[in-house]
Amino acid sequence: MLAAPPAGAEVAKATPAAAAVAHERLWLGSAWYPEQWPEAAWDEDLRLMKAHGANVVRIGEYAWSRMEPAEGQYDMDWLVRATRLAAKHGLKVVVGTPTDTPPAWLTQKYPDTLQVDGTGKTLGHGGRRQFSISSRRYRDLSRAIVTQMARALKDEPNVIGWQIGNEPTDESYDPEARAAWVAWLKQRYGSLDRLNAAWTTAYWSQTYTDWSQVPFNTDHANPGWMLELKRFITAQWRGFHQNQIDAIRAVVGGNQFITINFGGLGWANRFDRYEMNRDLDFASWDEYVGSGHLKPWRAGASHDLVRGWKRKNFWVMETQPGFVNWAGVSNMLYPGETRALAWQAVGHGADAILYWQWRNARNGQETMHGSIVGPDGKPLPIYPEVQQIGRDMAKASAALAGTQPVSPVAILQDYPSRWAIDFQLHHRDYDQIEVLLDYYRPLKDALGAVDIVEAAAAPLAGYKLVVAPNLNIITDAMATRLTAYVRGGGHLILGPRSGLKDEFNRLETRRQPGPLADLLGGQVEQFHALDEAIEAGDGKAVVWAEQLSPAAPDTDVLLRYGKANGWLDGKPAVISRRAGKGRITYVGALVDDAVMKRLIDTALRDAGVTRAFAVPADVELMTREGGGRTITILVNHGREARDVALPGSMTDVLGGGKVRKLTLPAEGVAVLQQ
Amino acid sequence: MLAAPPAGAEVAKATPAAAAVAHERLWLGSAWYPEQWPEAAWDEDLRLMKAHGANVVRIGEYAWSRMEPAEGQYDMDWLVRATRLAAKHGLKVVVGTPTDTPPAWLTQKYPDTLQVDGTGKTLGHGGRRQFSISSRRYRDLSRAIVTQMARALKDEPNVIGWQIGNEPTDESYDPEARAAWVAWLKQRYGSLDRLNAAWTTAYWSQTYTDWSQVPFNTDHANPGWMLELKRFITAQWRGFHQNQIDAIRAVVGGNQFITINFGGLGWANRFDRYEMNRDLDFASWDEYVGSGHLKPWRAGASHDLVRGWKRKNFWVMETQPGFVNWAGVSNMLYPGETRALAWQAVGHGADAILYWQWRNARNGQETMHGSIVGPDGKPLPIYPEVQQIGRDMAKASAALAGTQPVSPVAILQDYPSRWAIDFQLHHRDYDQIEVLLDYYRPLKDALGAVDIVEAAAAPLAGYKLVVAPNLNIITDAMATRLTAYVRGGGHLILGPRSGLKDEFNRLETRRQPGPLADLLGGQVEQFHALDEAIEAGDGKAVVWAEQLSPAAPDTDVLLRYGKANGWLDGKPAVISRRAGKGRITYVGALVDDAVMKRLIDTALRDAGVTRAFAVPADVELMTREGGGRTITILVNHGREARDVALPGSMTDVLGGGKVRKLTLPAEGVAVLQQ
Amino acid sequence: MLAAPPAGAEVAKATPAAAAVAHERLWLGSAWYPEQWPEAAWDEDLRLMKAHGANVVRIGEYAWSRMEPAEGQYDMDWLVRATRLAAKHGLKVVVGTPTDTPPAWLTQKYPDTLQVDGTGKTLGHGGRRQFSISSRRYRDLSRAIVTQMARALKDEPNVIGWQIGNEPTDESYDPEARAAWVAWLKQRYGSLDRLNAAWTTAYWSQTYTDWSQVPFNTDHANPGWMLELKRFITAQWRGFHQNQIDAIRAVVGGNQFITINFGGLGWANRFDRYEMNRDLDFASWDEYVGSGHLKPWRAGASHDLVRGWKRKNFWVMETQPGFVNWAGVSNMLYPGETRALAWQAVGHGADAILYWQWRNARNGQETMHGSIVGPDGKPLPIYPEVQQIGRDMAKASAALAGTQPVSPVAILQDYPSRWAIDFQLHHRDYDQIEVLLDYYRPLKDALGAVDIVEAAAAPLAGYKLVVAPNLNIITDAMATRLTAYVRGGGHLILGPRSGLKDEFNRLETRRQPGPLADLLGGQVEQFHALDEAIEAGDGKAVVWAEQLSPAAPDTDVLLRYGKANGWLDGKPAVISRRAGKGRITYVGALVDDAVMKRLIDTALRDAGVTRAFAVPADVELMTREGGGRTITILVNHGREARDVALPGSMTDVLGGGKVRKLTLPAEGVAVLQQ
Repeated sequence: MLAAPPAGAEVAKATPAAAAVAHERLWLGSAWYPEQWPEAAWDEDLRLMKAHGANVVRIGEYAWSRMEPAEGQYDMDWLVRATRLAAKHGLKVVVGTPTDTPPAWLTQKYPDTLQVDGTGKTLGHGGRRQFSISSRRYRDLSRAIVTQMARALKDEPNVIGWQIGNEPTDESYDPEARAAWVAWLKQRYGSLDRLNAAWTTAYWSQTYTDWSQVPFNTDHANPGWMLELKRFITAQWRGFHQNQIDAIRAVVGGNQFITINFGGLGWANRFDRYEMNRDLDFASWDEYVGSGHLKPWRAGASHDLVRGWKRKNFWVMETQPGFVNWAGVSNMLYPGETRALAWQAVGHGADAILYWQWRNARNGQETMHGSIVGPDGKPLPIYPEVQQIGRDMAKASAALAGTQPVSPVAILQDYPSRWAIDFQLHHRDYDQIEVLLDYYRPLKDALGAVDIVEAAAAPLAGYKLVVAPNLNIITDAMATRLTAYVRGGGHLILGPRSGLKDEFNRLETRRQPGPLADLLGGQVEQFHALDEAIEAGDGKAVVWAEQLSPAAPDTDVLLRYGKANGWLDGKPAVISRRAGKGRITYVGALVDDAVMKRLIDTALRDAGVTRAFAVPADVELMTREGGGRTITILVNHGREARDVALPGSMTDVLGGGKVRKLTLPAEGVAVLQQ
Repeated sequence: MLAAPPAGAEVAKATPAAAAVAHERLWLGSAWYPEQWPEAAWDEDLRLMKAHGANVVRIGEYAWSRMEPAEGQYDMDWLVRATRLAAKHGLKVVVGTPTDTPPAWLTQKYPDTLQVDGTGKTLGHGGRRQFSISSRRYRDLSRAIVTQMARALKDEPNVIGWQIGNEPTDESYDPEARAAWVAWLKQRYGSLDRLNAAWTTAYWSQTYTDWSQVPFNTDHANPGWMLELKRFITAQWRGFHQNQIDAIRAVVGGNQFITINFGGLGWANRFDRYEMNRDLDFASWDEYVGSGHLKPWRAGASHDLVRGWKRKNFWVMETQPGFVNWAGVSNMLYPGETRALAWQAVGHGADAILYWQWRNARNGQETMHGSIVGPDGKPLPIYPEVQQIGRDMAKASAALAGTQPVSPVAILQDYPSRWAIDFQLHHRDYDQIEVLLDYYRPLKDALGAVDIVEAAAAPLAGYKLVVAPNLNIITDAMATRLTAYVRGGGHLILGPRSGLKDEFNRLETRRQPGPLADLLGGQVEQFHALDEAIEAGDGKAVVWAEQLSPAAPDTDVLLRYGKANGWLDGKPAVISRRAGKGRITYVGALVDDAVMKRLIDTALRDAGVTRAFAVPADVELMTREGGGRTITILVNHGREARDVALPGSMTDVLGGGKVRKLTLPAEGVAVLQQ
Repeated sequence: MLAAPPAGAEVAKATPAAAAVAHERLWLGSAWYPEQWPEAAWDEDLRLMKAHGANVVRIGEYAWSRMEPAEGQYDMDWLVRATRLAAKHGLKVVVGTPTDTPPAWLTQKYPDTLQVDGTGKTLGHGGRRQFSISSRRYRDLSRAIVTQMARALKDEPNVIGWQIGNEPTDESYDPEARAAWVAWLKQRYGSLDRLNAAWTTAYWSQTYTDWSQVPFNTDHANPGWMLELKRFITAQWRGFHQNQIDAIRAVVGGNQFITINFGGLGWANRFDRYEMNRDLDFASWDEYVGSGHLKPWRAGASHDLVRGWKRKNFWVMETQPGFVNWAGVSNMLYPGETRALAWQAVGHGADAILYWQWRNARNGQETMHGSIVGPDGKPLPIYPEVQQIGRDMAKASAALAGTQPVSPVAILQDYPSRWAIDFQLHHRDYDQIEVLLDYYRPLKDALGAVDIVEAAAAPLAGYKLVVAPNLNIITDAMATRLTAYVRGGGHLILGPRSGLKDEFNRLETRRQPGPLADLLGGQVEQFHALDEAIEAGDGKAVVWAEQLSPAAPDTDVLLRYGKANGWLDGKPAVISRRAGKGRITYVGALVDDAVMKRLIDTALRDAGVTRAFAVPADVELMTREGGGRTITILVNHGREARDVALPGSMTDVLGGGKVRKLTLPAEGVAVLQQ
């Protein structure tokens, strides 16, 4: 066994009370940048926030040059004044650390802190995130400014928590990062022989005889090397954040929560988000629609993914007040759609909705982005809709406090497998997020929010059905966990490409699903990238199909290919086997929606999973449970009104009174309590 | 107020007589490179030029290594011989300075003169324009060679003028350019506080505490910084050219004109062409069709733009004799199309048509380009058509001498606004040249050539209608000028996105149109990038629509949106208000051709602008006036013959005699005098 | 005349007996990498190879780090053991030199051996071919390892030959390569005056006054310079290979053959493959289908091209066992298609089919590539089909030994012309390979394999028809050869763009076809890139059309344009003239398939070329002759069975017995002996 990754353990957290504040009610607010405006304008800004129902404001995260205009000369007074003015207006504060935007003096004096990108180019001042996450000096400078901030704000009662940096993205390839890489490899592998064996460096004469020979750039394509680099990047990011977390905790103790806003790319996989979240009190992300309009399945799955990072409710730390500035077409959402988006987020486990941003800076990269007030400080047309959300939340907050989505089904997600497939697509149209969504859509239609959780670590015993659409890498430990789940009575469905690789992204010497082949009583004889659609049952398979073969007498063939490419004609496409008290099923192809729906419906029925009541097309039904309450949230994502019949009389939390049926207009929302 | 840009003033010019020679007749000729051929071949080249009616030849502009084969060793004798041989054939000469192509010895000895592009790459020898416009040494070397040329040619009577370099394009990012940038910033802003305020550097911690911290590359995206960089580049180019102009004037005095050929990208905006033209006697450009065939609206607008750079007639310094070598499909124009192109150019104010090139070099980057004679020195199939143009010009030159297009309507153009919109498109399909052409097309159909002039400086009083399709930046000075124009009786039409920004590309704190909102009596509540077409009046709006609101009681709503995206449904799309003796109209959307035509037709009718007579589709009617003469040029751009009825008897300048009606074949041309 | 290119002469070869072994039978096998697997697994690998009928195995070509784990420490024992184990199983061995993959210690210690690509980027360890072909040190290190290998294996009786490196691709732009470039230029041109004249450096002031000024990068676009760079690259590659060939020959003498696998891009033109092949015993290449399925015309032409490199049979050194890993869609071939592909290759002159690869490495860049056994060492579904090929070859090998395709028609190919056209396409859709295939398709339908041979050197006298579809450069020597061919009774057909350039890629001063214009009795007046299809005879011309004009009284117009772009209307498109005992024809346009078929059919009929018998659509008929035998190979490339009637009774080599007709199933193959 290899040495465990460094820093994998959970670290000190906020006290339960401080952490709980994030979930004790629904939060509404925006990002606000007082440093961009004359202090005389602050009061009116905060008054207008309060007037639309905000209860929180996010400040500070890009203001390093304002807080430390010259090295070691700190000015936190303005920050304290802004915080206290927010308190005067009844607004809580989340403080962002400014480490995404080092000041110009810092970059000028310490060019060794600059990021070197994968092409070898050194970044410069003027944008964001030009620093190296691996720079010791940058970490020290970060610790110093963050410590000063914590000292200034630790006793401000309306400061409820901290956000570290904002939207972590790129790693660095500078010499210091290279040294860290070599150290990482030594710790992980212990000897070059083990590294050479794990990566099969005999291939193409890649054998390393000195640690410093191992490449460190983005050109390389040995899948073993590539996977290890991802693990290293994750660890570097984690260390970068931990440094600041330690600094804050050293000052504020456990009285304020700490989160990271992981940005708008929920499915991004530049680093392992499960690892990154271990050190946080809860997860945050950005929900941006960009061009066009909300895609409910995709957005719902993103929320469920984020909720799964820590298996608890989360914050939407940024979302668009109407439109963004960076999309191909930065159109505005429809009237009501911003509200529908907020309530869908809550239905999937969001406890906070923060808009980016309150008011546009007069210059800088994002002046054209949507905001709630204009550069004139006056409400824009979106303001009344945000005010409506404020009124909604005031009504629903108490009912929803302490509740969260509860799912009888889990979808397994695994960053190593994500990387492994993406490194070697084999078919340009193999989009594993779409593969996951193929399973997610019928599950969400049946269940509302669905847990999307970490394949390697999430407890599975409580789930009636576990679906692993893309488990390309199945480690021995994972195989043990999954076997125990099945034998204990669960139903595990594996998608195509499962179990092809081991933990080093090395081909298994057993055919797929590798360490689960015996449990399955069957294996994959050959995988096929498809250049044409083929028949699968009474539907179609596209892009990918595997030739399965049952080996055990009790392995059932659930689906066969029809007319195909010759090799697959009539061959098994889905096989399944009872094992212990449970069942394991292997789906070898990407099948069409109808075939998938039958597959999932059957699995749900067999597992005894049912839903309270049916809703029309376009209406999303979500449920949060907790504190003995079950809260139902309905959102009509369509452009037409829809009638919904309830299974009984329910309290209409937003509209008031009891209802047995209701009509949701386009973008309409209802919150119901049983 | 900030300090004015350096070198903004007009500089010494040719004497009136020397400058007037450019416009005293129609000029026809080509670019000729005697240095590429044995001297024995020169006479036949010049004889064939004269035989097709040429009266001018352009020489010298890439021959530095021939004129100065080693540092300080000048050989101008061949140039003088070529010039005198041209004189013998009755051809005038325009001399190009060779500074676009430094010799290999220069680049080798002085690598500090090399251009560093925006990615940090240093250019090398072998192409064109590998020098840095900011290199003091390169300017000195340029001055030396140009001085030698001027001395050699100053007394040659057939030398009528000079062209500086050829087709200016890229700036440089070398260390010397960086130093110039810092100096520029200091002069423009005086203090970093003012710079920081203008660019809102509080955003993303961009605050500069030392001048040398300000970035100088092409990665940066702060719109304030980006705009300033464009102004700096303009000034660098202007200084680069002024250096040579001074050198020539010091030798030849005011006896020969000086121009620059700005190249084939009329709408290019790498630098401010108004600024660049201030130092010249007249403007020149390249008209290249490239793939396909002449697009009359686009070509006409390009000519009108170029005429507007100095508000006087111009030269087409290069155009294709049939085809080019660089287009995706370098097809040949139709028979007659080369002639139609020439006469359209004259109709829009060209006083010269020069072909590039006379004869292909046997090797080098452009051997496949169209030419008039082949590498065998014998006429190619295009030769007879060029000869026809020569005969035409011989007949029409006297009538057209001293005339120019006269337009009762102006379209305003502004490079800072061009940059501002392009920096932040917000909708990938927002093409501001297309937006301008939306207005231009109905105006050109109604008027022929239309003045396209500098928003910041062109006198407006004489125009009955002024259209500003893209005035994103409205400075206070511009607002004062436009207000005076309206109050004095003019009609100003503003297009979408007008008045969003100030001179630093900073959001106005008043809503659009910013400093003109009071005059308009209304404002833009919100702009919308459109992801779907919406109704506007009885037509459609696409890509962009703004929600307008009248504030003054006398502000009229001329057009409303119909069914739209919810926000815009029924809202005003065009508002207008009488102000003083005039009127201001704001058009908030990109509307379809029919809606635009009604808008423009109404504005023309209200302004009392009418046209002499109507012409069929595909026939372009252009008028030049001067010296008491009105010359009408008709070109049939279509593929079918067209009959044109004249309003009375007119002299057929090309065909001879008087006509009251005529039939134009495909690509047919007529020149008529009343 | 310029000095001849260095190293142009043929070099020492294998003895006739050693060279003949490559063609003495049909060879079947795979690439095998014992260094990637425990030695205990080798025997089973070799057993399974033998069991499917393999008789050869390729080893060694990427195992440098295994053979020389530290500098000067050689370990060849494993290689000898693997070779002897192969012998035990009756398998011959082809040894690959490992110089495509320098070990990490080498790159680390000698960074001066690294390749600098055309953008100036230095490559690093971890992929393939990161070395500089111009590095003296790398050549020395290569010679050392290759010498050690030769010493270890020279007396192993089952070693039949060597492969130098694998798939040569990129040259290097490092300082040492630059010095070699300057030396090359001095030798080629003797003086800068000659170089300047050849490249017309008077154009754009490119004149060189010092050898070191000449650019050496990939930015430059002077066509003369570009062509010379290609010649230099060819010479560098040739020298790189010759170094190893000399090392091997010094040890093994003439007892083993030497080849190079030129990779999968048969039509690639990074260097001149005729030059590269002069030093080899025979040519090898990779046949990879990639996405989709076999395209018989394209594949056949590729084989014919490769056969033409040395005008003898060749080896398919790599081909896909079902699928690849690098295509957009890496789909599997149909059942039977792998076999059909192998037999088409044999029909076009392949004497060996080697699969890449036997067994996937567990990690490394190509783990997903098709193979014959899996990482578990057990047969994959493709195995039985490969076994079928083994059985086929066992039956057919004796009949085919010593035979090769014989073609009465030659297509001329010329790398300088290839480069010249590609450097200056003039029309983005001008694809000269497609132009060649336009001629090839009707020729192949009529003849089976067609010789595609070197325009500059292949003997022509034996051909009844010679087609030069793309002879853009016609040197004086080539003109002499072609004139002699025509005058001697041959028929030469020239395609468009012929004879535009001389050997320096310089425009001819005679119009096309330049030095052949007098023979043709006509010339090209003007070439036209077409932006629209035009009429040509009763068909169409697209992309390119030239206006031809007969000058001699006996020049015939075979085809005229109809309605075209005005210039070409009614003008000659194809002209032809009897000259001496033969004929020369010039085709000025890219014509449609029907027009081309008539043109070719007429030429074949006039030349008296006929075929033995007709086959249905989709069935390819190929013939190999030798040793008094004529062997016919039929392959049905279609998806339906096809009946073929034979001209008489023939021996069914694979099926046994005599047949007069047969039915070929989809992907069916027959080998027939008369």
